[in-house]
Amino acid sequence: MTRGHSPTYRVPRKPDVVAKALGQRVRELRTAKAWSQERLADEAGMHRTYMWGIEQGTRNPSLRHLTRLADALGVSLESLFERL
Amino acid sequence: MTRGHSPTYRVPRKPDVVAKALGQRVRELRTAKAWSQERLADEAGMHRTYMWGIEQGTRNPSLRHLTRLADALGVSLESLFERL
Repeated sequence: MTRGHSPTYRVPRKPDVVAKALGQRVRELRTAKAWSQERLADEAGMHRTYMWGIEQGTRNPSLRHLTRLADALGVSLESLFERL
Repeated sequence: MTRGHSPTYRVPRKPDVVAKALGQRVRELRTAKAWSQERLADEAGMHRTYMWGIEQGTRNPSLRHLTRLADALGVSLESLFERL
């Protein structure tokens, strides 16, 4: 990609590291409610294997999925991404 | 969908409302840097029309896209989703 601007210095976060950290956060919020993965998947209207993949950090959920997940967990998106 | 549990009371956020609010937040962070949409698209490695759609709230960006966007803007994901 041709860049027309000087690059800004930053340390980009690797997407898979972020996905894994989000998965841990989801698990933390889920277990705080004493919910099984199946229960959370059900509450968020997602398939259980998809939810499993989110907690493993192997999925790349969209904003819509993330919104449904935060809603199901009863937290804001800001809280879902705490320290991320 | 058959639900095996009693539904938890909550007020779900509509995904398109969240997408629009996120778009406004991106615009706010971008203009604070005095960057054009083109500049931000370039920094985040996205196409300019895709970035335009994110700011309009008509796109459904994935976690990877959101991570690249936060990195380009120099903020955490938590900050990107401030008050969301």
